[in-house]
Amino acid sequence: MGSKQVETVYCDFAKPFGAQDFQVLIGSVGVKSVVTNFYVQKNTKFSRRNTPIPFEVETVNNGRAMDLASGKFTAPVKGTYFFTFAGHASFPSSFTRVEILSISFYRNGNKVGTAEVGEFHSDNNQLCPLNFQTSQNLQAGDQVWLQIETVSSGVELYDDSRHLTHFSGFLLEEDFS
Amino acid sequence: MGSKQVETVYCDFAKPFGAQDFQVLIGSVGVKSVVTNFYVQKNTKFSRRNTPIPFEVETVNNGRAMDLASGKFTAPVKGTYFFTFAGHASFPSSFTRVEILSISFYRNGNKVGTAEVGEFHSDNNQLCPLNFQTSQNLQAGDQVWLQIETVSSGVELYDDSRHLTHFSGFLLEEDFS
Amino acid sequence: MGSKQVETVYCDFAKPFGAQDFQVLIGSVGVKSVVTNFYVQKNTKFSRRNTPIPFEVETVNNGRAMDLASGKFTAPVKGTYFFTFAGHASFPSSFTRVEILSISFYRNGNKVGTAEVGEFHSDNNQLCPLNFQTSQNLQAGDQVWLQIETVSSGVELYDDSRHLTHFSGFLLEEDFS
Repeated sequence: MGSKQVETVYCDFAKPFGAQDFQVLIGSVGVKSVVTNFYVQKNTKFSRRNTPIPFEVETVNNGRAMDLASGKFTAPVKGTYFFTFAGHASFPSSFTRVEILSISFYRNGNKVGTAEVGEFHSDNNQLCPLNFQTSQNLQAGDQVWLQIETVSSGVELYDDSRHLTHFSGFLLEEDFS
Repeated sequence: MGSKQVETVYCDFAKPFGAQDFQVLIGSVGVKSVVTNFYVQKNTKFSRRNTPIPFEVETVNNGRAMDLASGKFTAPVKGTYFFTFAGHASFPSSFTRVEILSISFYRNGNKVGTAEVGEFHSDNNQLCPLNFQTSQNLQAGDQVWLQIETVSSGVELYDDSRHLTHFSGFLLEEDFS
Repeated sequence: MGSKQVETVYCDFAKPFGAQDFQVLIGSVGVKSVVTNFYVQKNTKFSRRNTPIPFEVETVNNGRAMDLASGKFTAPVKGTYFFTFAGHASFPSSFTRVEILSISFYRNGNKVGTAEVGEFHSDNNQLCPLNFQTSQNLQAGDQVWLQIETVSSGVELYDDSRHLTHFSGFLLEEDFS
């Protein structure tokens, strides 16, 4: 670790400051200069492509790094963050082709990865879940968000008052380098 | 942070106690007064509505805040907790309507959010996953659990000796305010 | 906690070392001697049974405990770890039986738990997600990985340049006992 981590040491103050066993290394602490974690939900459906998915319900937003209206999380400090997304596609009645919803995770302007669900023989209002978990080494100021990649006609990222869409994240380890 | 977090400081004991640079703030530590994390599984199917889902297999239960028989996790301290659920609906043979299983996450008496999976053209013993991740700011003594919200006739939260149902959680940040 | 955790104490150095209130216990710190977290992806499909699933794309591998080629994570220290997996089954065109993909999480030689997705009426290239989250108390040197358990003919764990397969993990609490 060295210069990148804060180290926890055991000091025996009954000994003189220069003694060989005055200080013993225990470990690098999970020290953080900020508390950052969020859990937000939607309460309405959404089907717009190529735009960050906004969220309406703020359940947890310690540190306020998640902006619900823009759908963007901005890293307050350099470090490793963990994110999870769980949502649901609603399908129309369809028997002729596979209907699709795919959602990608973006870091700044770059697509990181994708979750997709498709149904072939579906009926109106059928819900199917799609999920995503990731960790990311972020610089302070980096932004992450979710975006619909592909959505068949009649398919939506569905939500209502039951809150079926879940986006959460937290600072796992801060990098003090 | 201030009064709500434990702060880590660097002290230079070679300097006198009152010196201006005797103490330097590093950050607020992820200090916890308890270790709390669990991962439990089921080994049998379940389809009862309006009752916390019990778990049979204890894989991890550090701090013993998860009670498998009642299905309830009781927060030992005030803080932010993270929870994940992954399970599977088993469907019967059905071609006439969408069959559904939905599971909600409860905090004390209140429904927080929901995961649902539906199938239209399904065959006997077809399994489809549903998932949920959330974080929550809890008071000491707050309880959380999972509950079946909607279950079509013949549909079940399925499990057997393969352990298809996964509920885990941990204390993310303790709040010392 | 006692001997198993590092304790954080408040020391008032203005008081003599032996005074009753010289040292006050705050809590057991989430101290770690190593930083360990990873997030890896696939970029190609895979359908081999009874072999750890390899990964091709290293996004995060702080501590380098995850070996992508072998698909195995080796715990660097004793402690509690958290893992998440999200992937997708691709189905062929099929109307005669339920097609299946199931993936299990292994700890050393032992199967811990499973995620499965089945489709009855499916069309070519239909993708359906399956997911898994778990925490594990591991000894230093313990290994965990993912493995295909059941895969119907024509079904695959699908991936391409969009990165649909996500495996992440991190050290939650180190055990110093």
